[in-house]
Amino acid sequence: MTCAPPYRPSTDSDIEPRVAQLVASLMNAKTGANDICARLLDEVGRQAVRSSAGGKRLRAALAMAAFDATHPTASSGTTPTAHDLSHGRTPQRTAMLDVACAVEVFQTAALIHDDIIDGSNLRRGKPSAHRALSELTGKDSLGEGLAMMAGDILATGSIDIVRRAAHDLTGGDAVLAAFTSMQREVGIGQVLDLAMELMPLDDAAALGKASLNVFRWKTASYTTIAPLELGLCAGGMDPPQARTMAVSIGEPLGIAFQLADDVLDVDGHSERTGKPVGGDVREGKRSVLLADTLEAAQPRERDLLVSLYAAPHRQNSDVERIITAMRHTGALRRSRERIEALCQRALTAIANSDFDEAGKALLRTACRRFLPGFLPDGE
Amino acid sequence: MTCAPPYRPSTDSDIEPRVAQLVASLMNAKTGANDICARLLDEVGRQAVRSSAGGKRLRAALAMAAFDATHPTASSGTTPTAHDLSHGRTPQRTAMLDVACAVEVFQTAALIHDDIIDGSNLRRGKPSAHRALSELTGKDSLGEGLAMMAGDILATGSIDIVRRAAHDLTGGDAVLAAFTSMQREVGIGQVLDLAMELMPLDDAAALGKASLNVFRWKTASYTTIAPLELGLCAGGMDPPQARTMAVSIGEPLGIAFQLADDVLDVDGHSERTGKPVGGDVREGKRSVLLADTLEAAQPRERDLLVSLYAAPHRQNSDVERIITAMRHTGALRRSRERIEALCQRALTAIANSDFDEAGKALLRTACRRFLPGFLPDGE
Repeated sequence: MTCAPPYRPSTDSDIEPRVAQLVASLMNAKTGANDICARLLDEVGRQAVRSSAGGKRLRAALAMAAFDATHPTASSGTTPTAHDLSHGRTPQRTAMLDVACAVEVFQTAALIHDDIIDGSNLRRGKPSAHRALSELTGKDSLGEGLAMMAGDILATGSIDIVRRAAHDLTGGDAVLAAFTSMQREVGIGQVLDLAMELMPLDDAAALGKASLNVFRWKTASYTTIAPLELGLCAGGMDPPQARTMAVSIGEPLGIAFQLADDVLDVDGHSERTGKPVGGDVREGKRSVLLADTLEAAQPRERDLLVSLYAAPHRQNSDVERIITAMRHTGALRRSRERIEALCQRALTAIANSDFDEAGKALLRTACRRFLPGFLPDGE
Repeated sequence: MTCAPPYRPSTDSDIEPRVAQLVASLMNAKTGANDICARLLDEVGRQAVRSSAGGKRLRAALAMAAFDATHPTASSGTTPTAHDLSHGRTPQRTAMLDVACAVEVFQTAALIHDDIIDGSNLRRGKPSAHRALSELTGKDSLGEGLAMMAGDILATGSIDIVRRAAHDLTGGDAVLAAFTSMQREVGIGQVLDLAMELMPLDDAAALGKASLNVFRWKTASYTTIAPLELGLCAGGMDPPQARTMAVSIGEPLGIAFQLADDVLDVDGHSERTGKPVGGDVREGKRSVLLADTLEAAQPRERDLLVSLYAAPHRQNSDVERIITAMRHTGALRRSRERIEALCQRALTAIANSDFDEAGKALLRTACRRFLPGFLPDGE
């Protein structure tokens, strides 16, 4: 007699192909044309699929974990019961997979628009959508326009994915409401983020506070809070309770994730991040890391940093000088301490939840993947 | 005894304030901040309200007319019955008003993005959103980024308006599906429209066909087809039947509307249009009007026109020369004939519908407002 392998409802392996399928179908339109317009539309569709590929799918996986956590007998890691097996294939779970993928589709849309706004040429180590479309057409303004529209189609299309999936979910309308609300929060967060470049640099505490607020709206909203909320709602949890729990776990986790991203920018390797080291510093991004650096710096160094950030551009030597200051003032260490404290808050929120041990384990595993260095695998 | 005034369920007077209210509420967020970021977010919200103001609200009025047409006893223009009066205030009609306003909110979003892509400084005679926000912040890239986000928030927010309204509508999910589908069609249409600048100018017939196809996707989709479909669905018509009727009336009407817009560009007054005369010509827009001009021109004039359109910019004298050619080749007249034929198709579709005479009259009135010069008020 052989032991059955531990039961794992398929998730990760299903997400990637389903995202590609959904993006392709949103961009595919029978326009009745067979001319250069129709061919360019096809190219924009292919670019949208390329732009959506290669993410870590942490958001979709967290949404699935939250959904599965609401079904305590499933996914317990032991021999599957009949309930487990059927749960893995229920219409509800299939619908939830589409909701989870819709978060990834929306992220693609948001990143395409973000790259246009920031003038970023690279995304995940490949040309950003507007760059690729500019090169294809030989016209920058055309490439940007096409990419903007691809973003628009994917953003509203992701809502339609959720609308259709909601038919098979008990808390369908609450799921759809949470999804549209998420998109709005990200938009508001982007406005706040753009406004950061007008923040004066002479009040480090105010700068740090504003930056954390941006992280809450622009990043935590769709990275952790919404995936949790969507999964919990779709799993049948009362929507206000789902929201409260999603915020209690997702807000600290999402802010920690963004802090770690900023740390990685100055302390990572470009092969790992797909972005050049110090890119945020070069762009003059006003972050918590910068605020902590300004706060801890001696007056003379602070004045120098302020003048470097006030300048329209920063040279390689400026970037190096700033990164050195982030290190020796202890600001980088302070960011790591902030991340650890926030992770602890997220873990405590999971521990205090009403889920059984299997459900809590599912959530911890999904949360850990956001911050592998800070949330070790052991208990 | 005094005669009661003819009953008109309030529509036009309700639309404008409700649009402003909805836009303001979408942009209003309690971000927890009271700094320059929060203040700039408020400014973006105020700009969104300004950008949404001053439209003719033809789309919303058409949607209301289609809804009212499905209720034959209402709005017959005579003394109101008890049914009429209650109909004017039913939760269904209130919900429908929000759906109608959501089309206007979406249009605002689409125009904000369109103006960024086209680099247009004016909209309805006032600075476009990105121009206004660039002037406010003193930074073009910041103004464009903020406007892009305002467009994103309004586009997805308009879907949420419909989601909420759908709760009070019998065909709620069909209405929501039609609304998201409309947004997708407009996005596809914008891609096709952008691609037009790559169309070769040596095949006038292909150019004309491609341009008509763009009009169908980019303009008719949300200008006439969707308003009709939304009103008919919300009024309880079977969704496939609503779609068929909406396309049969809305497709010719919407294409005629765009043709008339192009005619007005070269033959109108800038005080009336809020745009400079010949703006489309200056931009080198490849339109049905251009295709008809090229088709009818003598070879030497055609070569000249092709070279003027192939150039990166057109001077005042070029614009005048092109407009003269549009006139004397008969292309302007041909556009007017096209518009008349399309209007006739729309009127025939209304006449062939199953509505009673009161319903048909409501639809005719709403359709006429799109093309006052071509669809006279008389029967």
